[in-house]
Amino acid sequence: MKILGRHLIVEYADCNADILNDLTQLEKHLKDSVRAAGATIVESVFHRYNPQGVSGAVVIAESHISIHTWPEYGYASVDFYTCGESVDPYKAYEFMKEKLESKNPHVFELKRGIPSETDEVIAHKPYPQTAAAIN
Amino acid sequence: MKILGRHLIVEYADCNADILNDLTQLEKHLKDSVRAAGATIVESVFHRYNPQGVSGAVVIAESHISIHTWPEYGYASVDFYTCGESVDPYKAYEFMKEKLESKNPHVFELKRGIPSETDEVIAHKPYPQTAAAIN
Repeated sequence: MKILGRHLIVEYADCNADILNDLTQLEKHLKDSVRAAGATIVESVFHRYNPQGVSGAVVIAESHISIHTWPEYGYASVDFYTCGESVDPYKAYEFMKEKLESKNPHVFELKRGIPSETDEVIAHKPYPQTAAAIN
Repeated sequence: MKILGRHLIVEYADCNADILNDLTQLEKHLKDSVRAAGATIVESVFHRYNPQGVSGAVVIAESHISIHTWPEYGYASVDFYTCGESVDPYKAYEFMKEKLESKNPHVFELKRGIPSETDEVIAHKPYPQTAAAIN
């Protein structure tokens, strides 16, 4: 794979259910986790469901972070997807683990990028590059 | 795992680079893909980077769909994360494959949910449920 990003797939179990149902707190914590990772917030959306649960997504200059919560199970599903070497998604993961008070967090890392036979890390290329030059 | 969701991790390679750099088209296609999957749009954010590339996230009632594009590589990284049995994320995957004109798409499915020793599919539980009852 031509690696462009790291994607942490996180299941936070045994969390504080009240926090998982509090949109205002979750939005603050998730945005603070972006900063903890050294990443840059671009735009975000958060929504609280009836009767329970919150979903949110923060588009960052380095990809995105998302959260979905099930307060009734004390569970949150979170993705930390970052590109580039200057950010550390594990710092965001540790930050959220603490803020959600998760006693049973699980994380694994996926590499994201262009499928190929060998692995190498690549980055953005200068523009302009026409479609014709790529195809 | 107590399974709450299905998460398709998709790398679309060899796409039409012009489409990958067109925020308006991408936003329309991604929202149409939500409908193709039988899911419901809640809120969305899209951003076009300088000099190239688009990121977007659509929060849906059944979790989220996100996209990040690298037009200079003809590549898009897309997540289709859905909960519940009434939606089919593969329909969104097929829809976007066609719209991005990807000649080399790769997809794999993750189960998302609460870690446990045995696998079972669960769903939202009735509310209210207090934090004390969970912990």
